[in-house]
Amino acid sequence: LGLGLWRRRQQAAMAASEEDEAEKKEEEELRQRFMAPPVSGLRELRRRRRELRSRMELLIMETQGEVCRALAALDPGASFAVDTWERKEGGGGISCVLQDGEVFEKAGVNVSVVSGLLSEEAARQMRSRGKSLKAKDGKLPFCAMGVSSVIHPKNPHVPTMHFNYRYFEIEEADGTKQWWFGGGTDLTPTYLNEEDAVHFHKTLKEACDKHDLKLYPKYKKWCDDYFYIKHRGERRGIGGIFFDDMDSPSKEEVFQFVKSCAKAVVPCYIPIVKRHCHDSFTPEEKLWQQLRRGRYVEFNLVYDRGTKFGLLTPGSRIESILMSLPLTARWEYMHTPPESSKEAEILEVLRNPKDWVH
Amino acid sequence: LGLGLWRRRQQAAMAASEEDEAEKKEEEELRQRFMAPPVSGLRELRRRRRELRSRMELLIMETQGEVCRALAALDPGASFAVDTWERKEGGGGISCVLQDGEVFEKAGVNVSVVSGLLSEEAARQMRSRGKSLKAKDGKLPFCAMGVSSVIHPKNPHVPTMHFNYRYFEIEEADGTKQWWFGGGTDLTPTYLNEEDAVHFHKTLKEACDKHDLKLYPKYKKWCDDYFYIKHRGERRGIGGIFFDDMDSPSKEEVFQFVKSCAKAVVPCYIPIVKRHCHDSFTPEEKLWQQLRRGRYVEFNLVYDRGTKFGLLTPGSRIESILMSLPLTARWEYMHTPPESSKEAEILEVLRNPKDWVH
Repeated sequence: LGLGLWRRRQQAAMAASEEDEAEKKEEEELRQRFMAPPVSGLRELRRRRRELRSRMELLIMETQGEVCRALAALDPGASFAVDTWERKEGGGGISCVLQDGEVFEKAGVNVSVVSGLLSEEAARQMRSRGKSLKAKDGKLPFCAMGVSSVIHPKNPHVPTMHFNYRYFEIEEADGTKQWWFGGGTDLTPTYLNEEDAVHFHKTLKEACDKHDLKLYPKYKKWCDDYFYIKHRGERRGIGGIFFDDMDSPSKEEVFQFVKSCAKAVVPCYIPIVKRHCHDSFTPEEKLWQQLRRGRYVEFNLVYDRGTKFGLLTPGSRIESILMSLPLTARWEYMHTPPESSKEAEILEVLRNPKDWVH
Repeated sequence: LGLGLWRRRQQAAMAASEEDEAEKKEEEELRQRFMAPPVSGLRELRRRRRELRSRMELLIMETQGEVCRALAALDPGASFAVDTWERKEGGGGISCVLQDGEVFEKAGVNVSVVSGLLSEEAARQMRSRGKSLKAKDGKLPFCAMGVSSVIHPKNPHVPTMHFNYRYFEIEEADGTKQWWFGGGTDLTPTYLNEEDAVHFHKTLKEACDKHDLKLYPKYKKWCDDYFYIKHRGERRGIGGIFFDDMDSPSKEEVFQFVKSCAKAVVPCYIPIVKRHCHDSFTPEEKLWQQLRRGRYVEFNLVYDRGTKFGLLTPGSRIESILMSLPLTARWEYMHTPPESSKEAEILEVLRNPKDWVH
């Protein structure tokens, strides 16, 4: 019996040390895949590994790493500046920005994990469907995390791409927790390339279809509706998917859907960059790109809810929020492209969105 | 008696024909001073010449002409494109834009005279002090007119200038008319030049002081407060004067004040352009100018009430509203000028406004 006990103890010790080893190995692997240590710390994330907040934080860290590596591989001369920042009111983030490269004019991939108390006004801004939130003393404890990225390439034949996947929790006065996911991936070309548009939308559709066939059509339309520059009567780009306030069928199922979308970012975009980053272009094509960049700025500063929310949130990091703006943009008075030009062709699609997958 | 009657008739006929002559001459003179025929028509303006609406329309037309001529004289190779436009819902405007000249990158001077029905939301946007307006069936008859201008020069040593003078009338459900004036002139330099700043502010102060010594200090502060880019903690420029909702002491007195301000535009700005438009500059100075232009865009699209109101008003002319945006702008991630540099010097003044006239 004494020997039995000793053996069991030895086995337990070996198992524990193997577990330690495995943990260390896993930690090492994550460290290599991430751009910086996660905001909540690897140890803390492991401690509460079953909680969705932790799994989501690992997913956004992993997505940031994947996308940054894929972009850096295409722009060997340039590299990502990695800034980690803390938010006085709670949480922080990791901003990765590549500026003035050979292929990319400005590429940013941000992770933020923030928590604290939200004013009722800011909470209203957060929920697009305007569900009422009952606050205690006007303040709501919240937790928000996400990965968000805008890639502005130099070559006017390589489109701009944006994606963002995020998770929110808000605690109401009576202690009930509201949670929801939001996100999307969308493309903003300077010129229309049908093959690219089809590839982009098909890749997103496949990611959605694994979960529910209704998702792609619904979120494709939401994307066309959301990225609308009302005063111009134009969409910002040729769309993709967009969703917000997603809180059904279940936390786990929505998380799995968001994971599929995040995993689709590299395959939907990188092949397009590879295909066109060495295309030749004229000064006139560069000029049109700059005018379209101006429209991008208009959308982001006038309409984008994420930007508005960021500018409103006390202690938010302005440089990370406005990283979405292009390096350069242009506004010409009364610029109208000639009929049947390539410039008029893309405008037509921005005015009347197309179905790219049927 | 017969002869007396005949004489009197002849004298009356001669007087009438002299009056006709005088009118024609006046009309001809106005035609030469204006950039285009006024929205309300010269005949109609003469018919109701005693009404403030008519006198204000003549003033804004005259200001447009004065400023355009002064700018064109400094940029002989370029010329103003003059567009007259009509608003389906009532009224119209005249947009004068000089683009890509030798001295000016983009200079726009707009006149608009619009009327129609306003939604309660749009009416709320119009009055900064949020006076409540009682509408009949949710709609308020209104009339709004103004001259508005933004001048972006090429040389980074020549500051950007903006001015706007406007008049509003709104009729409430019970038939009472609310009226008020608004306006201002402000300067946005890329680099600080104290002499220019003092000249600019002194000229505005003199225009104000003729009417009431309290006006300049009050409107100088309002200007610093209004052109505040909250998320950056910076003002857009080194200020000037700004006022809104001005409805006392009397319509006539406020009009005379607005007239003095409008007449001060050319003397406060043109000498500064002349002094610096041939200054040499480095590519680094041009780059800093482009970054400051980015901030200009941020203010106009995120905070400016006039722009917001314009984007909200159905049938408003977007190209005229967004003419205020520079031809080109730039956003660099985490750009911070070195301490004690010329770039840091202007930032300091944008963060902590100075008193330029005492």
